[in-house]
Amino acid sequence: MTIKDARTPASSQGEQSQGEQSQEAGKSSGWHKAYVEGSRPDLRVPVRQVHLTNGQSVTLYDTSGPYTDPLIDTDVRRGLAPLRENWIIARGDTEEYAGRPVRPEDDGIKHTAPRGGLRNLDAVFPGRPRQPRRSRDGKAVTQLAYARRGEVTPEMEYVAIRENVSPEVVREEIAAGRAVLPANVNHPEIEPMIIGKRFLVKVNANIGNSAVTSSIEEEVEKMTWATRWGADTVMDLSTGRNIHTTREWVLRNSPVPIGTVPLYQALEKVDGRAEELTWEIYKDTVIEQAEQGVDYMTVHAGVRLPYVPLTANRKTGIVSRGGSIMAAWCLAHHKESFLYENFEELCEILAAYDVTYSLGDGLRPGSIADANDEAQFAELRTLGELNTIAKRFNVQTMIEGPGHVPMHKIKENIDLQQEICDEAPFYTLGPLTTDVAPAYDHITSGIGAAMIAWWGTAMLCYVTPKEHLGLPNRDDVKTGVITYKIAAHAADLAKGHPGAQDWDDALSDARFEFRWEDQFNLALDPDTAREFHDETLPAEPAKTAHFCSMCGPKFCSMKISQDIRREHGGSRAEIEEGMALKSKEFAASGNRVYLPIAD
Amino acid sequence: MTIKDARTPASSQGEQSQGEQSQEAGKSSGWHKAYVEGSRPDLRVPVRQVHLTNGQSVTLYDTSGPYTDPLIDTDVRRGLAPLRENWIIARGDTEEYAGRPVRPEDDGIKHTAPRGGLRNLDAVFPGRPRQPRRSRDGKAVTQLAYARRGEVTPEMEYVAIRENVSPEVVREEIAAGRAVLPANVNHPEIEPMIIGKRFLVKVNANIGNSAVTSSIEEEVEKMTWATRWGADTVMDLSTGRNIHTTREWVLRNSPVPIGTVPLYQALEKVDGRAEELTWEIYKDTVIEQAEQGVDYMTVHAGVRLPYVPLTANRKTGIVSRGGSIMAAWCLAHHKESFLYENFEELCEILAAYDVTYSLGDGLRPGSIADANDEAQFAELRTLGELNTIAKRFNVQTMIEGPGHVPMHKIKENIDLQQEICDEAPFYTLGPLTTDVAPAYDHITSGIGAAMIAWWGTAMLCYVTPKEHLGLPNRDDVKTGVITYKIAAHAADLAKGHPGAQDWDDALSDARFEFRWEDQFNLALDPDTAREFHDETLPAEPAKTAHFCSMCGPKFCSMKISQDIRREHGGSRAEIEEGMALKSKEFAASGNRVYLPIAD
Repeated sequence: MTIKDARTPASSQGEQSQGEQSQEAGKSSGWHKAYVEGSRPDLRVPVRQVHLTNGQSVTLYDTSGPYTDPLIDTDVRRGLAPLRENWIIARGDTEEYAGRPVRPEDDGIKHTAPRGGLRNLDAVFPGRPRQPRRSRDGKAVTQLAYARRGEVTPEMEYVAIRENVSPEVVREEIAAGRAVLPANVNHPEIEPMIIGKRFLVKVNANIGNSAVTSSIEEEVEKMTWATRWGADTVMDLSTGRNIHTTREWVLRNSPVPIGTVPLYQALEKVDGRAEELTWEIYKDTVIEQAEQGVDYMTVHAGVRLPYVPLTANRKTGIVSRGGSIMAAWCLAHHKESFLYENFEELCEILAAYDVTYSLGDGLRPGSIADANDEAQFAELRTLGELNTIAKRFNVQTMIEGPGHVPMHKIKENIDLQQEICDEAPFYTLGPLTTDVAPAYDHITSGIGAAMIAWWGTAMLCYVTPKEHLGLPNRDDVKTGVITYKIAAHAADLAKGHPGAQDWDDALSDARFEFRWEDQFNLALDPDTAREFHDETLPAEPAKTAHFCSMCGPKFCSMKISQDIRREHGGSRAEIEEGMALKSKEFAASGNRVYLPIAD
Repeated sequence: MTIKDARTPASSQGEQSQGEQSQEAGKSSGWHKAYVEGSRPDLRVPVRQVHLTNGQSVTLYDTSGPYTDPLIDTDVRRGLAPLRENWIIARGDTEEYAGRPVRPEDDGIKHTAPRGGLRNLDAVFPGRPRQPRRSRDGKAVTQLAYARRGEVTPEMEYVAIRENVSPEVVREEIAAGRAVLPANVNHPEIEPMIIGKRFLVKVNANIGNSAVTSSIEEEVEKMTWATRWGADTVMDLSTGRNIHTTREWVLRNSPVPIGTVPLYQALEKVDGRAEELTWEIYKDTVIEQAEQGVDYMTVHAGVRLPYVPLTANRKTGIVSRGGSIMAAWCLAHHKESFLYENFEELCEILAAYDVTYSLGDGLRPGSIADANDEAQFAELRTLGELNTIAKRFNVQTMIEGPGHVPMHKIKENIDLQQEICDEAPFYTLGPLTTDVAPAYDHITSGIGAAMIAWWGTAMLCYVTPKEHLGLPNRDDVKTGVITYKIAAHAADLAKGHPGAQDWDDALSDARFEFRWEDQFNLALDPDTAREFHDETLPAEPAKTAHFCSMCGPKFCSMKISQDIRREHGGSRAEIEEGMALKSKEFAASGNRVYLPIAD
């Protein structure tokens, strides 16, 4: 595929391009947004085209949504255009309905408070009114159901173009349960993406206010900021006030699938008293969120009563919020988890909206000492059991993984998960490879993330520098996303993902040829790369200089390397020939000075 | 071993302590410097004792030198006390001599410039005058020679205490060539350390001015700053003016071994014209640096003429400065490398001072595309050959490794190096696992560093965020060191290094028990951990709060976990018993809700 770029038709036909057709969008410092059209005019897949100074261009995967397209007038108060709406309607298997009325307690307003009394009405999302949609007459409306029936949906074709594979490969992987395409029928704004080990490794960024700090505006900004830097999905983990309203703003403005943990909101509805949770309150919350358009939900149904004692001798007990809430509930009632007991009914609800399961690892280890213990693997076996049930209901399912794990125990995690869960996508948090570096846990976990993704994890949940310490701000979100994009891309390379190395090659070519601007523009974070270079050599001529301040002109190995090539031949082929000839002469004259030593 | 701490004799007898005896030094926000005495009063090994609020203490390895001991009055103009001087003299196998006179060109003053005309005389190190020392009457004065003769030197005993192993293990590993103890007889100021795969993974930090920027003061400050954060050795890679003088300041003030690349200074002496380099100029530079006290030297003797053509088709050619200089020399003269041809004479020189070889990988890959190629492995085989020769001369030797290597090609590097080089310590730069993240190459390389260290690399050369872009400043040095300490410690854990996990366990205990101050003080970087916590919850009571702003009080899993334990039993043993009983009741009543699905 080649993108025909309307803006610079001659110069952008680079060796890296892909895609059948494109439409110009506009330029943003060194790259511009383009689109690859699929089999129908309303199927346009965004790509990031980086324009090089040598006339070539490089096409990169783009998660930033319409915000980076200057031809699209975005407004967070209106929300994004519902790209998938016609596809969903055309299938004719869903219907609109009145939906569940929004109640004050959805936003954490206490039952006893005067109705609306504490509510910030200004915060209500002002976009067009909409009714929720769900499956009609028990129709199977999940991408898994379509894939199993042999149907390639527009969503599947969309991700096939994004991943540069055939739509049939996408369908097969979804049908086999090895990949998920999270796309709630009530979230038509998303640009479809896929999570599975045969595809590019994905990165999730967590946002969300807490009872202590952060506002709706901040969370929406963090979402667009995270996707700007490459987040493939975003989880809204809000736990404070305005949970419902914050989520509405995030969903209506998000170009990527949104995940949540419904248990958090359910707990707010019972004023934080875990023992007061009921299946009814939880179910109502799931429906509330499914109607809003949440694409995947973490469900800690694997935290079963008999497993709780297995955590008693742990160094750090239960470190998953959801896991600890469910454990507290189980012990308070001395009953099996209501999530586990009502799992089939939950499957029916999720199936009606095509919400994807993210089966939570509520008993994941929270320290090196607790890695790969009995509690963790007991839960994993239950997740395997639940995965099988979910598939019976045509619910797409991924499995969450740890946590804190030393390097030598990482592989066992992915191997066991793949075996127990029939190769369902693994979605891991890190893992952190040591406990001793609070404030640097993006790095302790980036190491583990790269390794486990190489071995098969399909999506990585990012960790920010604030992990264990506080709520991430905008800068932390960026640092977390960039670190995890590094881990994901390193894994794509190690897996030999087709075309993954083209990006590295383009950047290394630019580096060797001292095309500084190209090196910056191809970088995961062009702004910081440019800033670091300019810190010591700010002048414009330094952008074309054949050295940088790191080694200076005399010690620039790349400059010397180039000089060698220039002096000993023209093209690479010529110099190779010339040098090989000289080398042969030298070898013929006996080029060994030291003979191998026997002792 | 237990450290008897004079300051707080009752409270500091923690389960983590080690060491026979100690002497109080002074406290620095949560930890204080203590010493473990060996078999003689002048053998005192520094440790960092972290004092926990629960009355215990944790003993950590300490590289920060006398600067963190408030009882020692340090002055960079005087230099550090020569701790090893008596040990060296007592051996009676070295002698002082007049030494080579310092010449203006040693500091990069041009031959044609008026003598001293450009020299900044203020910069000359003002400390006590000293004469260099070298072996007497061809005596073998290296730690390798002593180890082979069965002698345990004070240096070996010192590192045995540091590593918590027996002196005999240290001697055996050095004798076998599997470890090096870099300790030039002219650098008596160092606190001895060891580099080998059976010991803790070490981290090197590079400093050094370039022709473009940076001053002597900055370099000395970077050295003390790097060791403050945990650098085990420092390489002075200066290439600009004042190379000799900068190195003198660095050496006289460094508590850790100092490495250099003599070729850089030699090239400055011929005004940057590689083809004008000669064996004589190089040899003179090596002697100059050996007399100053450089502990290990990178020598690119493996870049042989016949290998240069092997780099012709590379994406990024030769990226080692030393490698490119030697390649240029070989091609210009169409001759075999003078380093390779004079290697035996070089061994004799290094042996006379106990300078350790770091055999440079001048043909290391500079991009993912070039990893593990013919040029790289051809050089590695020559390094194996040179390693054998060096050992014949009793010269301690380590081998340098790449570079840019994707994850799936990393293991081959260490396996091949260990095989070819008779298990000599591997000393790798990263490796970087992708090329696409300039400004984040501490992270791209931290991933590879952790992995290769797990598999056997003995020392990691750090990479800072400025790699490929510019000269690191103080902040970059700190970020690089912390990132690499994480990689090294993660590897120590994965290798199952005895006692390595004690540190993680202590921190995780503090985390689970909401001992925030202990968590900060045990962190690799206490300052940043505290700062990040305080950003959202600055008040002092938050330091004892049972939550942080990340999740808030209601969603703190650790708090819920603790509540569970409190409500369902007292001690961990009690709760386990109580919960296990309940669990059995539950199991007896049939605790499976869903039976395994056959389909």
